[in-house]
Amino acid sequence: MENQIFELQYAMDTFYFLVCGALVMWMAAGFAMLEAGLVRAKNTTEILTKNVALFAISCIMYLVCGYAIMYGGDIFLSGIADFDLAGVLSASAENGFDGDSVYSGASDFFFQVVFVATAMSIVSGAVAERMKLWAFLIFAVVMTGVIYPLEGSWTWGGAEVFGMYNLGDLGFSDFAGSGIVHMAGAAAALAGVLLLGARKGKYGPNGEVHAIPGSNLPLAALGTFILWMGWFGFNGGSVLKLGDAANAHSVAMVFLNTNTAAAGGAIAALIVARILFGKADLTMLLNGALAGLVAITAEPSTPSALQATLFGALGGVLVVFSILTLDKLKIDDPVGAISVHGVVGFLGLMLVPVTNGDVSFSGQLIGAATIFIWVFVASLVVWGILKAVMGIRVSEEEEYEGMDIADCGMEAYPEFVKG
Amino acid sequence: MENQIFELQYAMDTFYFLVCGALVMWMAAGFAMLEAGLVRAKNTTEILTKNVALFAISCIMYLVCGYAIMYGGDIFLSGIADFDLAGVLSASAENGFDGDSVYSGASDFFFQVVFVATAMSIVSGAVAERMKLWAFLIFAVVMTGVIYPLEGSWTWGGAEVFGMYNLGDLGFSDFAGSGIVHMAGAAAALAGVLLLGARKGKYGPNGEVHAIPGSNLPLAALGTFILWMGWFGFNGGSVLKLGDAANAHSVAMVFLNTNTAAAGGAIAALIVARILFGKADLTMLLNGALAGLVAITAEPSTPSALQATLFGALGGVLVVFSILTLDKLKIDDPVGAISVHGVVGFLGLMLVPVTNGDVSFSGQLIGAATIFIWVFVASLVVWGILKAVMGIRVSEEEEYEGMDIADCGMEAYPEFVKG
Amino acid sequence: MENQIFELQYAMDTFYFLVCGALVMWMAAGFAMLEAGLVRAKNTTEILTKNVALFAISCIMYLVCGYAIMYGGDIFLSGIADFDLAGVLSASAENGFDGDSVYSGASDFFFQVVFVATAMSIVSGAVAERMKLWAFLIFAVVMTGVIYPLEGSWTWGGAEVFGMYNLGDLGFSDFAGSGIVHMAGAAAALAGVLLLGARKGKYGPNGEVHAIPGSNLPLAALGTFILWMGWFGFNGGSVLKLGDAANAHSVAMVFLNTNTAAAGGAIAALIVARILFGKADLTMLLNGALAGLVAITAEPSTPSALQATLFGALGGVLVVFSILTLDKLKIDDPVGAISVHGVVGFLGLMLVPVTNGDVSFSGQLIGAATIFIWVFVASLVVWGILKAVMGIRVSEEEEYEGMDIADCGMEAYPEFVKG
Repeated sequence: MENQIFELQYAMDTFYFLVCGALVMWMAAGFAMLEAGLVRAKNTTEILTKNVALFAISCIMYLVCGYAIMYGGDIFLSGIADFDLAGVLSASAENGFDGDSVYSGASDFFFQVVFVATAMSIVSGAVAERMKLWAFLIFAVVMTGVIYPLEGSWTWGGAEVFGMYNLGDLGFSDFAGSGIVHMAGAAAALAGVLLLGARKGKYGPNGEVHAIPGSNLPLAALGTFILWMGWFGFNGGSVLKLGDAANAHSVAMVFLNTNTAAAGGAIAALIVARILFGKADLTMLLNGALAGLVAITAEPSTPSALQATLFGALGGVLVVFSILTLDKLKIDDPVGAISVHGVVGFLGLMLVPVTNGDVSFSGQLIGAATIFIWVFVASLVVWGILKAVMGIRVSEEEEYEGMDIADCGMEAYPEFVKG
Repeated sequence: MENQIFELQYAMDTFYFLVCGALVMWMAAGFAMLEAGLVRAKNTTEILTKNVALFAISCIMYLVCGYAIMYGGDIFLSGIADFDLAGVLSASAENGFDGDSVYSGASDFFFQVVFVATAMSIVSGAVAERMKLWAFLIFAVVMTGVIYPLEGSWTWGGAEVFGMYNLGDLGFSDFAGSGIVHMAGAAAALAGVLLLGARKGKYGPNGEVHAIPGSNLPLAALGTFILWMGWFGFNGGSVLKLGDAANAHSVAMVFLNTNTAAAGGAIAALIVARILFGKADLTMLLNGALAGLVAITAEPSTPSALQATLFGALGGVLVVFSILTLDKLKIDDPVGAISVHGVVGFLGLMLVPVTNGDVSFSGQLIGAATIFIWVFVASLVVWGILKAVMGIRVSEEEEYEGMDIADCGMEAYPEFVKG
Repeated sequence: MENQIFELQYAMDTFYFLVCGALVMWMAAGFAMLEAGLVRAKNTTEILTKNVALFAISCIMYLVCGYAIMYGGDIFLSGIADFDLAGVLSASAENGFDGDSVYSGASDFFFQVVFVATAMSIVSGAVAERMKLWAFLIFAVVMTGVIYPLEGSWTWGGAEVFGMYNLGDLGFSDFAGSGIVHMAGAAAALAGVLLLGARKGKYGPNGEVHAIPGSNLPLAALGTFILWMGWFGFNGGSVLKLGDAANAHSVAMVFLNTNTAAAGGAIAALIVARILFGKADLTMLLNGALAGLVAITAEPSTPSALQATLFGALGGVLVVFSILTLDKLKIDDPVGAISVHGVVGFLGLMLVPVTNGDVSFSGQLIGAATIFIWVFVASLVVWGILKAVMGIRVSEEEEYEGMDIADCGMEAYPEFVKG
């Protein structure tokens, strides 16, 4: 009967990973809709193509080598399909059935692989409307196969950073990836944006910032709701265990805090935008919700609900000013991804020590710096090579005509006349 | 080992609440898409803003005071983050581990909070295309912080209605909220609509009703599918327990009946609309499905599958005639929310005694009257104050130009030329 | 305590079915969005109507007679609402609590009923833009009430094919329905398409194939993501049991393989289309992902992750050539459903013996032939009768004007001027 209880726990924890993983996979649709809604109609087919293809590339590259780099183990997961109940049981019996890691390795891979795709999804929005499709996809191969997994090996994987220091020993913690996933994605995006330059017409010769409105705001709102929902899996699954009362309660707190942080971020951004612009700015509202989610992601399990709401609100305020500041710096990010995931991702890391006594500010700073520098520099090198070899920016004519015809040969809305 | 089994049950019931809660949260996206699809293009950004903001407001207000009003307990859930396994275990051991309430309080809050948002989402559709954005959001604060929680305290909370009578004692029951959530939302909406008046051009001087077609029907269909899916969590989670065989079977029956009631409502409305209008009316089909869902929500666990289908079909027939009748009364509800959630919500309450012998028609009538009168009158007062203080209706010019530019400063589809 | 463990397992397996079933129900939204995105604007309301209505019809017909035909049991599930814990327990105790079938019959019905809708959803895309709405819905009644259930009784139901031979005895296996669901849907679609003929203007007099672009590609991409997500439930739930370690691991492998097969199909189709057309063809990318999903559906539990990726990629390559070939044959399938679900469904069946030693190529061939011939011929008869009695094709004028006005009396995008 001891074994039966163990097997139930194994089944429950495995199912929990799978449900959470399916929710994180769903975030790929969220990014796709958000970005498709915020670009111009003429670049919509291309951004959809990027989003579907990058998800597929992420899944395959993490299978081919990413998971092995990050956590060790076989290339292609060759051993994961085998299941040895007797071995699992005897190993757990030795531990007195204490419940550690009693889930299928396949469910773990499934949960991890969808995180890689999230990191990569962040990049596509920032470089939208001017980045060559195939250059982007080649970058996705390197990012999801090497750059992210190596960074992940130093953090969640527990390996030393180039054999020099161990982030965990320094008091670094990033529960579900404000830094490891979100800021990492933003760092790769920033490197790309700096090499790419701004879209034609975005910035005037005298420092004017011209708004380039998104073509389909219902899609942007839908994408935000999808991300909000998927984030329950992203953060909730990062407890890594459900099958006893303490962990189940922790998962519940994470769901609660994730939701309330998003709400806090949304309202804060709505109010700030109202004060600054005099309008209820929908795109800021959406980015505020996402900022709240990113801000809580580094530690959603220790804050109280009130703290989580305030942390989310801080993210919502910060994201508005960050978006305005980046525009002043002429860093052109059509969907605000660098602000939402990078700037607020850093904020999220820095908020962890407020509620988690095991974590130090210095550890968080060193961790953030390690992640940012590695991903930014490595990405800069890859984007730079791509720029030299094949070019990363479409021609002026293609940019003017839209990337859909040039790259994909089809318009997203062929029957709707452009204004 | 007794404790291990208890902990597994605790984990399972907690996870069940979280999964169902995530599905109910997803309904917010459903309402947003449904409403965005059924309004005109020029009011789309504004309805999206309302939907995202009302969800965030609901989450925060229920945290600040709503949950405490409805179920007692701490403001801001200050105690909920703590977890005391020994206390939980000893309390349950005293009950002989009978399985009552063995789930995390945080998961309960998460499940409850998304219900508030559902009630509020119902309002936004009915007052669309003419209600001032900020007046609406202030109403949302009061509705989700006080009006709904007080009503909820009398029903699911078990408190006496203003210290006078107890609805449960009178034989009232509303399983998942046909009345408590849906009719309540519709009552608040009706009060707003009566004070607001109809949209310009909706009704002619001689009683003509002018159709104002929705601008994006795929969004409306998507919203309906999202609501259909989310409703499995709404009704399925309202069993409140999964972790033994009898309750698990009950949850399964609820899923089955929820689905088949929606199907019955859809087909019934399609056929009635075909007979009345000679066409396969998509919006009636969608409202029929939603009506089927509302009709079964008051009691999805006791009907047989055939009964559930018929109850749903009744809802689908009723909703068509209700929408036509409201238009004759010049009650202008752009998305049919008052009919779907209010009229059919009342039907749902009245159907409960047919299959649940513990419930009386008189109890249902008194309960329905209590909910409706309280929410309608309280809402009327709040809307009235807002009307007096800041106005609740946009100017004629803003209504003509569209609320998107006036309230949000951005169009939803800036590149698609209007016909 | 033995009983308590049994009840937990019962609850877990029931919940697993319900979660997977909700994901499969969600696929209905995926098909609706995919098809709405790939037809022209003037036929969008009608395809949405078909998709919502066919889902509702499927649910009701399977309840009325389909489930009884496929698996035996009561019409209208009259007995399913009753729950007899003592009976369930004593039956299981006799089996030594070995865990077979310990879930609610209601959850099983819920999981099965959404599969019927999937099969029917496949048909609507292929006959889009020219099939009369009501003829289609009548066909849906017969397909979901009789044609599919009879075929399902021979395969998953274990009955003999017209009393002649048993497919299981011949070594046939179709885990989650590459053939039983997907190829069956495609066979019904093919019969309809052959009787209907091509859309006006699709094929020129000298064999030219004219592309008829989809009107809203973000919807098509969204639909694909929805299907991808829902497929985790489709394949993952088809393990039919979660509640012990071996089955939980199997469910996890199925999730992993389903995801990686979709990724493989997407990338393969992207590359093949790039080579053939010189462009990153979004619709081929989407169909490639779906083809990968169909290809793995016949056996997602035995392949390694690498094999699953390759099987998916094979599907992705095949679907591109199949779509081109069908166009050469002037078989007009606006969304590529016959290629994705039929041709690749057959591929999926043929790949099973590669990794599952209990299955034979001859058994798969006989099974595929049985399914195809039965569904194709029966469908041809039904479509033929409908054609004779009421006609199945709209008039030339209606086709030119669009089916939305003719059948539904409303446009999908009334404000967006057509180009």
